[in-house]
Amino acid sequence: MPTGDKLRYRAGPVPFRIVLVEPEIPPNTGAIARTCVATKTPLHLVGPLGFDLSDHAVRRAGLDYWPKLELHRHDDFDAFVAAFPDARPVLFTAGATKSYLDAELAPGDALVFGRESVGLPPALLARFETAAIPTAGDVRSLNLSNAAAIVLYEGLRRSGRLADTFVERT
Amino acid sequence: MPTGDKLRYRAGPVPFRIVLVEPEIPPNTGAIARTCVATKTPLHLVGPLGFDLSDHAVRRAGLDYWPKLELHRHDDFDAFVAAFPDARPVLFTAGATKSYLDAELAPGDALVFGRESVGLPPALLARFETAAIPTAGDVRSLNLSNAAAIVLYEGLRRSGRLADTFVERT
Repeated sequence: MPTGDKLRYRAGPVPFRIVLVEPEIPPNTGAIARTCVATKTPLHLVGPLGFDLSDHAVRRAGLDYWPKLELHRHDDFDAFVAAFPDARPVLFTAGATKSYLDAELAPGDALVFGRESVGLPPALLARFETAAIPTAGDVRSLNLSNAAAIVLYEGLRRSGRLADTFVERT
Repeated sequence: MPTGDKLRYRAGPVPFRIVLVEPEIPPNTGAIARTCVATKTPLHLVGPLGFDLSDHAVRRAGLDYWPKLELHRHDDFDAFVAAFPDARPVLFTAGATKSYLDAELAPGDALVFGRESVGLPPALLARFETAAIPTAGDVRSLNLSNAAAIVLYEGLRRSGRLADTFVERT
């Protein structure tokens, strides 16, 4: 979807936050960075990454959006919580009993996703609210960047952020 | 998000369909294929592709899900319409004046997305309902696989498909 008119909404003062704990696959983080720029959502990368942030695959997936990203790095999840104590964590894991549609999602919340291979650590899941995106077919889980996009746009929808749109002429 | 319990929903008898017109970037089609398997959504690939379907990047992104995909190939969009006349097309383009939240989305509909670089052809956009996912930040558009995932899960949500969930123990 190229240059030209774009349908826009006005981002509010309090953003959702996306938190990736030890992401492993560069293009996923790149695609999530692009979604974050598109929605003025800060991106928090927690713990050791499975790649170098200068990896060309991260930047290629994020295209030229990386410089426009509000990016935070944290050594571990407790460091994130200490730095952003007002951000209520909601942890996403395929095995949660609560659907993301039944989870509270409000601006200011931190939407937290784990590693592509093994998800979030059980010790962390036990400490915070958890939710899942239900699936019907024979897959292990959704792609990480798709899962983050689904949850973020559901949060934006439900908070009314997307209700006031306008066409930006370019 | 690994092995273990999974939150599931029961897919209904009439699926949404995802239609990609001349997709160019293999991992996007792979990620969409994975989302399609996860939701029992048929995937329709229309026109010449920017890659070979045997491309390892497509299959890697779709992991081992590709054999479980209901995949259709069509020479052009009219061939798709002729083959699936009951599937009402909704075309997604960043410049549409209507938000996807205001568009009708019902099971049976064909959710249509264009090329990553230039989107859908204007001649096609003029013939069918169009809708956009609003953005707030300085991006050209969302990643194609993220856009498809957002719209598909909004359609599933709105049609009530996701309301009846259960945990599958594994």
